[in-house]
Amino acid sequence: MSHKDSMTETESRAAKVMQRADRMASFSETPEHLTRAYLTPEHKLAHAQLASWMLEAGLETWQDSVGNQWGRKVSANPTMPTLILGSHSDTVANAGRYDGNLGVLLALEALEALGDVELPYHVDVVAFADEEGTRFNTTLIGSSGVAGCFQPSWLEVEDANGVSMASAMDSFGLEPQVAGSDSRVDEEILAYLEVHIEQGPVLEAQNLPVGVVTGIAGAKRYEMTVKGMAGHAGTVPIGLRQDAFCGVAQMVTEIENYALEHDIVATVGKCEVLPGAVNVIPGEVRFTLDIRSLSQHQLETCCETLLEKLAAIAKLRSLSFESRNIYQAQAVLCDEVLQHKWANVVEKHTQQTACFLPSGAGHDAMVMAQVANIGMLFVRCDKGISHHPAESVTTEDVSVALDCFIDMVQSFAP
Amino acid sequence: MSHKDSMTETESRAAKVMQRADRMASFSETPEHLTRAYLTPEHKLAHAQLASWMLEAGLETWQDSVGNQWGRKVSANPTMPTLILGSHSDTVANAGRYDGNLGVLLALEALEALGDVELPYHVDVVAFADEEGTRFNTTLIGSSGVAGCFQPSWLEVEDANGVSMASAMDSFGLEPQVAGSDSRVDEEILAYLEVHIEQGPVLEAQNLPVGVVTGIAGAKRYEMTVKGMAGHAGTVPIGLRQDAFCGVAQMVTEIENYALEHDIVATVGKCEVLPGAVNVIPGEVRFTLDIRSLSQHQLETCCETLLEKLAAIAKLRSLSFESRNIYQAQAVLCDEVLQHKWANVVEKHTQQTACFLPSGAGHDAMVMAQVANIGMLFVRCDKGISHHPAESVTTEDVSVALDCFIDMVQSFAP
Repeated sequence: MSHKDSMTETESRAAKVMQRADRMASFSETPEHLTRAYLTPEHKLAHAQLASWMLEAGLETWQDSVGNQWGRKVSANPTMPTLILGSHSDTVANAGRYDGNLGVLLALEALEALGDVELPYHVDVVAFADEEGTRFNTTLIGSSGVAGCFQPSWLEVEDANGVSMASAMDSFGLEPQVAGSDSRVDEEILAYLEVHIEQGPVLEAQNLPVGVVTGIAGAKRYEMTVKGMAGHAGTVPIGLRQDAFCGVAQMVTEIENYALEHDIVATVGKCEVLPGAVNVIPGEVRFTLDIRSLSQHQLETCCETLLEKLAAIAKLRSLSFESRNIYQAQAVLCDEVLQHKWANVVEKHTQQTACFLPSGAGHDAMVMAQVANIGMLFVRCDKGISHHPAESVTTEDVSVALDCFIDMVQSFAP
Repeated sequence: MSHKDSMTETESRAAKVMQRADRMASFSETPEHLTRAYLTPEHKLAHAQLASWMLEAGLETWQDSVGNQWGRKVSANPTMPTLILGSHSDTVANAGRYDGNLGVLLALEALEALGDVELPYHVDVVAFADEEGTRFNTTLIGSSGVAGCFQPSWLEVEDANGVSMASAMDSFGLEPQVAGSDSRVDEEILAYLEVHIEQGPVLEAQNLPVGVVTGIAGAKRYEMTVKGMAGHAGTVPIGLRQDAFCGVAQMVTEIENYALEHDIVATVGKCEVLPGAVNVIPGEVRFTLDIRSLSQHQLETCCETLLEKLAAIAKLRSLSFESRNIYQAQAVLCDEVLQHKWANVVEKHTQQTACFLPSGAGHDAMVMAQVANIGMLFVRCDKGISHHPAESVTTEDVSVALDCFIDMVQSFAP
């Protein structure tokens, strides 16, 4: 008996999903790197491929007003609500092939696997045409069109070549004046389900193929400026210095300890030391802080407390300290009933206790939460690497995710 | 009685030194900033001015083979050794007017004040034409010519315009083939004395006009590379990170604490955080360490211990750590007898216990130590600022320094 013969049906389907992810990766701005941005020829070709696979799977297909690709498994009763499955088909520059795309292909494969199984609700699969914001910096355009929060002002935003979104829509064959007008309403949506690679190392560390997402963390970002007194590295004794970088070093350690104690994530990702010479005491340091929590209340409290702690460190060292909030995103929770449903199917297919974990990254689900209860499943990815060509998942894990997804899609029947 | 009438002779001479410092500052590459580099028209004009003042003071004058300007108070007995007083007349780009030049002008003024006083030794004042290395990056060219360590290979070094030092010497009127051939020998030198602004905040903090220099600290510089694992700021829990910058923050605090405990100076002046994005965990950090001590033994021991401590921090955090020594200068001690002599004259003129302090910056004295016992006196400068147009000293402090210098010059008589 060959290896192929010994595969289960789901394993064969998982292998097909992996092949399709490779095929999707071929629709790229350049052949050497995967880059697929909104309203580009690659977008058109990739969605044409998806539409063709959707038709093969027996789905009704259409493109909506912002360029998302849809496929529908129609219920016998046309008045029934719709379960929406989806993720995004666009990529960052020099991307991996699974971020977003895996969720679209798994949703499609789940519907194909269900074949003629009658369900008492419609099931839509959607490939959101923009989540990453690679072309216009404005992220989550696809799901915003569906959730009724597409901003007409976005039409004037220009890409790096000075092409406006309206003009790009026009060239693509969309009508910018009706963009977002076909948004969906919550009454007709049963739920929104998204499967996505974790983009982090938690499942790998716990040796689990999949995990149930509890919500999408809220985030705040700050820019800090710490000023002391520059001076000669040889002539100013340590005790007489106002070294801005020594102050910032203490702050970074404080941030790390605080995050460990409070189970949040906090990152100092940028730091500029001025004047930046080997023999000059740093007179000024600028750095950023990115802080996230699934609890909006905790996020607010932690930011307030942490900023006070940093200011106190500066004061003790006779340094000036300024902070500026440059970004914030509200935390969005996944529906508890949907989490429970995911956990049931995960435990059935893994024979292990389901792992619940928050998402520190943003996803289409966080926009779809405006019109639907959302439920997300994460798939383990190698070393947590994402937004990089080395992004990788195993066929075995994809097979588990597909088993879970197929059961999950059927679980809304009374 | 006018203010002027009430001045002592030394106070009048100090005021004259201040005026001469202003005059010297007028010999500059550009009128708006003071920049005077080696072998330039400004060098020639400034030294012509010094020579003219030297002649007024009754000194014999000459220019040596590397372009230093000399003046000699000749002893009646031509076989006697020579006491050399000096500092440098060149400046950094956009300089202050006292670094180096104050020492030259004070030496000249001390000799003028001594007038016809017979001394049983010659006294030379020298204006070293290059200490800063502003033009050719090669520092301390002037004193190297005198101390017999001028390197013929320097003649091939080019300035920013591709002009070699040999060619610049030629244009200036010097003969490059004999550069350094008129170096002095230790047998004929009684001692080398240098007065210099402190370029640090110690005397100001102790409310003292002058201080006795114990030596010129040795220095070592390192470039460090710390590598961890870059990752998404939202998806990697704090406990699973290998954040290179959190590691470096702990290292910088360790360096600061270690320097405080061991009474050395250590500075992290440059730091580059990679990839350097607000939402990416730093995967790599490069930073420099500059560490100095008057004790060469302590310097070596501290570097060894500190590098071990930093490597241990890296290891605990699963980070890689590499260090590369990029510079070192040996510590040079001032002669103890000369320190004692300086302390005597300082205590006489200040009525305060003399302050002994190391120099963290390099000086011509450190080269002259190869052919002479060296003795240095520091003059307080405002906030320790140097290498900057805001460099400032008071006439009162200059007057104290001059009183000390006049006594010091006479103190070698049996």
